[in-house]
Parts: sequence; structure tokens; C-alpha cells
Amino acid sequence: MNRNYLAENMTMLCDFYELTMSNGYFKTDIKNKITYFDVFFRKIPDGGGFAIACGLEQIIDYILELKFTDTDIDYLRSRNIFDEQFLEYLRTFKFTGDIYAVPEGTPVFPGEPVITVRAPAIEAQFIETYLLLMFNHQSLVATKTNRIVRAADGRPVSEFGSRRAQGAEGAILGARAAFIGGAANSACTISDIRYGVPAGGTMAHSWIMMYDDEYTAFKTYCEIYPENATLLVDTYNVLKSGIPNAIKAFKEVLEPKGIRKCAIRIDSGDLAYLTKKARKMLDDAGLDYCRIVVSNSLDEYVIKDLLRQGAKIDAFGVGERLITSKSDPVFGGVYKICAIEDENGNIVPKIKLSENAAKITNPHYKKLYRIYDKENGKAIADLMTVYDEVIDESKPLEIFDPNYTWKRKTLTNYKAIELQKPVFLNGRCVYPRYTTDEIRDYCAAQLELQWDEVKRFENPHNYYVDLSQKLWDVKHELLKKNNM
Amino acid sequence: MNRNYLAENMTMLCDFYELTMSNGYFKTDIKNKITYFDVFFRKIPDGGGFAIACGLEQIIDYILELKFTDTDIDYLRSRNIFDEQFLEYLRTFKFTGDIYAVPEGTPVFPGEPVITVRAPAIEAQFIETYLLLMFNHQSLVATKTNRIVRAADGRPVSEFGSRRAQGAEGAILGARAAFIGGAANSACTISDIRYGVPAGGTMAHSWIMMYDDEYTAFKTYCEIYPENATLLVDTYNVLKSGIPNAIKAFKEVLEPKGIRKCAIRIDSGDLAYLTKKARKMLDDAGLDYCRIVVSNSLDEYVIKDLLRQGAKIDAFGVGERLITSKSDPVFGGVYKICAIEDENGNIVPKIKLSENAAKITNPHYKKLYRIYDKENGKAIADLMTVYDEVIDESKPLEIFDPNYTWKRKTLTNYKAIELQKPVFLNGRCVYPRYTTDEIRDYCAAQLELQWDEVKRFENPHNYYVDLSQKLWDVKHELLKKNNM
Repeated sequence: MNRNYLAENMTMLCDFYELTMSNGYFKTDIKNKITYFDVFFRKIPDGGGFAIACGLEQIIDYILELKFTDTDIDYLRSRNIFDEQFLEYLRTFKFTGDIYAVPEGTPVFPGEPVITVRAPAIEAQFIETYLLLMFNHQSLVATKTNRIVRAADGRPVSEFGSRRAQGAEGAILGARAAFIGGAANSACTISDIRYGVPAGGTMAHSWIMMYDDEYTAFKTYCEIYPENATLLVDTYNVLKSGIPNAIKAFKEVLEPKGIRKCAIRIDSGDLAYLTKKARKMLDDAGLDYCRIVVSNSLDEYVIKDLLRQGAKIDAFGVGERLITSKSDPVFGGVYKICAIEDENGNIVPKIKLSENAAKITNPHYKKLYRIYDKENGKAIADLMTVYDEVIDESKPLEIFDPNYTWKRKTLTNYKAIELQKPVFLNGRCVYPRYTTDEIRDYCAAQLELQWDEVKRFENPHNYYVDLSQKLWDVKHELLKKNNM
Repeated sequence: MNRNYLAENMTMLCDFYELTMSNGYFKTDIKNKITYFDVFFRKIPDGGGFAIACGLEQIIDYILELKFTDTDIDYLRSRNIFDEQFLEYLRTFKFTGDIYAVPEGTPVFPGEPVITVRAPAIEAQFIETYLLLMFNHQSLVATKTNRIVRAADGRPVSEFGSRRAQGAEGAILGARAAFIGGAANSACTISDIRYGVPAGGTMAHSWIMMYDDEYTAFKTYCEIYPENATLLVDTYNVLKSGIPNAIKAFKEVLEPKGIRKCAIRIDSGDLAYLTKKARKMLDDAGLDYCRIVVSNSLDEYVIKDLLRQGAKIDAFGVGERLITSKSDPVFGGVYKICAIEDENGNIVPKIKLSENAAKITNPHYKKLYRIYDKENGKAIADLMTVYDEVIDESKPLEIFDPNYTWKRKTLTNYKAIELQKPVFLNGRCVYPRYTTDEIRDYCAAQLELQWDEVKRFENPHNYYVDLSQKLWDVKHELLKKNNM
């Protein structure tokens, strides 16, 4: 609803080293250098075939709000290591550079630049932590939710995790990311107000325990919310008490009004066994339209197993294992320098080496293309090029595996779409505001363009992320120069 | 520094069902009932022997700020399910009840009431999500950090995880909780300003890559920060380039000034092998005072293994696996009704049953005592009693296992300390503000009172959390009544 919600000024949510480095750049000629940084990640959580990029809207809000207050500067002065001129400079600090990013909701793959920053050294360095924090957190939750939604196989998934989230924003933006990733709605009310994530909910066990007996609790609820009655049936005993009382309440209060929209929720016990029994009891009572909702430490693994066992479930409430991505709770996006402009404006590619081969970066200011098969519309591969390369779609395109360079493939009937869009140019935001609904729809549409093999849970197809010949040459030139 | 930082109004960070239930209570006579709710948890993360309670300060801030704005009420009205009188009531809603809680930094155990709320039904119900969110998140991180600190065996642990946290508050309050749990400091600057968590940091790989060569980068840093030079030595090659260049910079810039406070940091590769080699190279160069800091996906398991292998490490930087508690990222605190007052002010105990025995609650308004051995000062057991029971320390106290009731023990020379302190009374905050330093010191002191057996990593001693005979009788009476 409120599209204009702006985050609190989060300028000081930075790693302290960004300040020590910035002060250092300020005192040397690095200060005026134009630098290029990439955000990318190395590993898809849970061994999945793709991740979903998310968090850009909050990055935009942060950049727009970026500014050091007097309190911030007083604090920095008290540390006794910062140059007074640097502190003065911070007073009017703002972001003046360019940011390009893949839109939220786009499926993304390891090694490719999801966000690229071009800015004077201090500005580019300073925004590192917050960019990563927003991108990592929301991409984690959107990616996880999409796994759970795929496991639920068409049944709606509600996000129920606020109480087990890691901090308030873990809950609020977690609900936003979950919705983008495919959750039908959330229990988190504030996310509806701020981001238009539909909020819903009915009752906890305490509702039932407030009354002298379960039936009165159910009946009262049906009377107050005849159109929204999901009764929680496991406070005392699901089969002996909860379901019989729910049936009685539905028949007594809702049936005379002709209301067939009702549900029960089971939050404990053996969900496969109980839902099968519950389905039969409801059907036998003529309530074949009553839906069965389950919750209790669910995730994609449990859901797949329940459905495989023939559990009778119409909808899932998923809490802690979604909101924290419990089985793999870290999204490892990194922020690495890839180029610096020299005095003459030439872009000098930079590479980070490492004893771990996987930690070696892709150098240079790059472009990122997604290549689609024109015949069936599906994505074939992503291709990184040097920034000034142009792909001529009228000509065949040879792509090759950057590690096994003899693995080559020539594409003919293809489309090459640039994935990154301009977000800030010379410090000005040029990116449209999308509603959360629009982002969610875009995500679903983009996933349609991926092969099922990429969306598989076990051993998904390793989607190709290739380097153009020119970029590959630049990288290997730098590796050779550094004796690797 | 800024002890008066108040969180944004988080009233609408509630599960939607708290609103539907509250509206329901409003429309019935439940509205005026006094209810009792407990916050407790069932399982210690990572199979540990204890957890550390944390998050109370933010709960206090939340309760103090609790209020529905016009925007909130407009939103609720737009949902078309809330009574107009209920919405009017929300306009002046505030918390008028009592809250008792275990102080932050206290070691706590499964099943015991860490927080108890006594308030009119709507108020007590409404605050559920936020109380759990704050308690769960910060207790998770404080507990995890303490594990990592114990594994580091006296070497300082720095919290480095902001970029991989789950949302901004995951980073900010995560740094606070980490400090309370024993981290020496944090990279998170804003947590220093808000909560006085010492922030520190030096350089990223990008600092080195900004310069034409590694040596110039190191030398420049030492010149600007002679008292704070921790050089990151793994941008190109730790042993061939990083350490030789660091030694050269230290000798050239710091040695002439007589500065011996310096360090290197290794962030990739085989840390056991590299630190042993590094130690020797530094010692051979006469830099035996140069400290070795390591980082890169560490946690208590990796740290124990590195130290076991004789790695030469003086300090640890721990990021993603601390800030998300990666190996067990959910702290399962719950909020359950335990009693209701009837028309005559009698407290009627309530129990939540379950097909899962572990999900059955401890009924009644309770007190929580920690029993200490007067001889050695160590904690022996925790004891829950009915609220009106008094423990007479001059008499022997018989405690027994609530599941295996034949396991009994009579204590004589003991002290019984009430663990919960009053936090709110009749809606007024009566709890002192402690600095984060004070809470951290209190935590360390409380841990001294626990046996080493409880602090063990593998199969820790199962600390006793017992019920008084009177409370046990109440519980089993209720179980019998419900045919369990």
C-alpha cells in the first residue's frame, strides 16, 4: 500500500574497514580514481539450480538516504584516527556514481555480476556492506521460498516465520522476499502496509485456551469471522476433539449461511496420518469443501515427503525454515573490485587471486547477456563480455566452457538480452519503482523461461555462465602475469 | 555511546492473527480477562548445554513505543473484518500489564519461563510476535557466539558478519548479541554508535588492488595507521608475496617508530598450514610480536580443529556462521498461555496438550528459581514453582525429575535465587537500563557459576529444570482431566 516507505538512514551500517580505507583513499591520490565493483555469488544455496536476485529496492532506498549526520561524524572524530578534512568531506558525502543491476526476481547464477558499481573509490568502497546485506538476505529468502513453493506443487504456501526471523527486518523484508519468490501471502502485517504483501491469519492455540472448551472457541470464531474461519484443531486432540468440534461449528454456524469457505489447520503430530484421517472425517460429514492447512517446521524436504506419502493437504504454512532458510542460511554474495580507470580514463582490469581457485574473480568492466533460443524462448546460457563488446544476433555465436575450453557450442537462432539495467547514473536514480506484485509476476515469468532441468531439486542442470573470448583472454592474461 | 536509541515504532510487526484474535476478544467478555503467558524454548541450538537469554532491552523499547498510528488503523479498516469500536479502542491502545523476565546474559534452559506476561487478553496476545522475535534472534546469536568464543580458548573473536546477516537488524542487534555472548568487538559501525559495541576494522582486498602493487598498498596503510596495521596478506599469494611484503612494510614504517602493535590477516587457503608457515617467517624476521588473525567461514567446529592441528593463530574474525548461527539458525522460543484469572480474580491454570509430548506446556503462573550450592557457589538446578510458593532456605529442599519422578535429591546447604525480575508493572517500566558492557560482564559472571560439564561441547550435562511438587501436581491434574 505505502509505496513510499523509506528506510531509516542506514549510512553507518558499514563495516568499519570501509571507513579506514576511505580515509586512506582520501589522503592519497586514490581518492579521485574511478573504480568498478561487481556483486556476485559463488554457490547456490541448498545445491539448487538457480537463485533469485532480490533486494534492489532497498539498495535504492539506502543510496537515496545516504548521508552522514553530525552524530555520525562526532562518533568518527572520537575514534581519533580519521583526518579532520576527511570528516569535513563526509558532511556533504553522497553517491555520485553509476549502478547497474539485474532486476529483482531474475533467476541468477554463480559468478555473474548481479550488480555493478562505477564510482569514485571512496563512494564505491563505502556502500559495500549494505549492498551485500540487502542482496544476500532477500535473495536467500526468495530463492528458498521458491524451492518450497515448487515442492508444494500448486498448493499455496503462506509465510509464517516472523517470530523466528533474525531481527525485525529479517521478518519484514523476509516476507517481501518470500512473496516475490512465490509465497501466496504472509502473517507479517507490517509487510502488507509497507510492501503490499497480502497479510492473513486467524487464530493461535491461545484463542482456544481462552475459552472453557474448544467447541465454544470454534463457534465464537465462526460467528465473528464466517468468511475467514480456519480453525486450529490440535490444542487438545486432533481426531478425538479438534476435528469433531470444528465440524460441529462449521455445520452450526456456516452451513445455515451457505458459506463453504472454511478450513482446519493442524500444527503438530504426524501430518501425513492426521490429514488423511481428517480428510475422511470432513468428507464423511459432507464437508468435502473444507480445506486442510498444515504447519510445523515445514520446508521443501518435509513437504515433498508428505505429498509423496499421500497426505491430504490443501495449503501450507511455513515458518522458521523458510524465513531463515534453515537448511542453508547464508547467501554468499561478495563485492569485488574488477577495474580502475587510469589518469587517461582507460579502464584497467583488476583480478583477485586466491589459493582457492573458486575465489579468483572475473576481471574488468563487463556486460552480462542472457541468451535465449528463438525457437522455444528458453534460456540457453548467460554470457559475460567486456563492456564494449556488441553481440550481433544475425551472426552465429560461439560459446565455450571457461574451464574446459574445448567444450564449445555454436548458436544460430538466438536472442541476446542484456540482464543489467541502469539504476543510478551520475548519482541520479533512473530505475522505476515496481510494486511487489509486479516483481513477483516478473519472477514467475522469468522462471518460465528456464528449463525444468534447471529447476530440478536433485542434481539440477549446471546452467552455463560463459565468458566471451575477449574477456577470457583478459582474465588469462592477468593470471599469467601473476604466475598463476 | 547513544544509550537513548529508540527503535522505530514496530507495533504493526505482528502476526495478523493477533489482530483477528484481539478483535474477537474485544467483541466478547474475554476482553477484560487477565491472562498469563510464558516465553520459553524447548531445545538448545547445536546440542549445547545452555542458552544465553538476550533481547530484553529491545522488548522494553518496543513496549514503550507501542501505539497504533492513523495509517495503521486505516490499513486495518481497509481489511473489512475489524469492528469499528475495536479500531477506536486501538487508537489509545497501550500496554498496561506486568512483565517479568530473566536479565539479558543469563544462561537459561529448556522449558523454563524466561519471560512472563500478565495482562488483559488483548494486550498479552498482541505482543507475542515481537517478544519472540527479539528474544529468539538475540538469544540465538549470543548463544552461538559464546560457543565460538569458548572454542577460541582465550583468543579474541571479532564479529565480522554484517554483510551475510539476515537484514539490517540481523547485523546491528546481531553485533550487540555477539558482544554480550563474548565477542571482543565487531566490524559493524552502527552497533558501536547505538549500543557501544566496540567497532574495528582495517582493510579489504580492494585496498590492495587499488594500488599498482601489494607492497605500496601495505606501506601506505602503515603510514596512515601506524597504530592499527593489520595487513591482509592473501590477495595474490600469502607465502610468496603477502607475508614478505608485510614484513618489509612493518620493518620500514613501524620498526623505526618503535611500534610493535601489528598483525597480518589470512582470509583464504589452508589456515593451519599457512599460519604455521607465516609464524615462522615472521619470527625469523624478528617480528615475533606480530599477531596472526584469520577469517573465512569459521565457526566453533572449524576453530577447534584448527587449534587441534597446531595452527598459529592469535585472533579470529568470524562472519556468516556466527551472525546467522549457520549450523542451527533457529532459536525456537514460543509464547504460550499458562493461566487466566476468573471473575473472582482466581488464577486458573491452563495447559496446551499435543500429540508431541515435548509440546505439552507447563501450566500456571509460576516463579523460577536457580538453586546454588552454598559451598562452591555453583548452580545445581532450576526450579519452577507455583507463583505463591516460598522456598525456605533453612529447610532441606527435595527436587525431582519431572519425567522420572523416582529420581530425587535432597538439597541442604543451598541458596535459591529468583531468576525473573520485574520489567513492567501496571504498564510502567521498572527495569534499569544497563550498558551493553554491563550485560556482557554479567553474562560472563553468570557463566562462571555454571559447571564446566554444562559448558562442554559434546554431550553436555543435562542441567536440571524441575517442577515443585505443587506445580507438578497441578500439571498432572490437568493432564488427567484431559485424558492424556
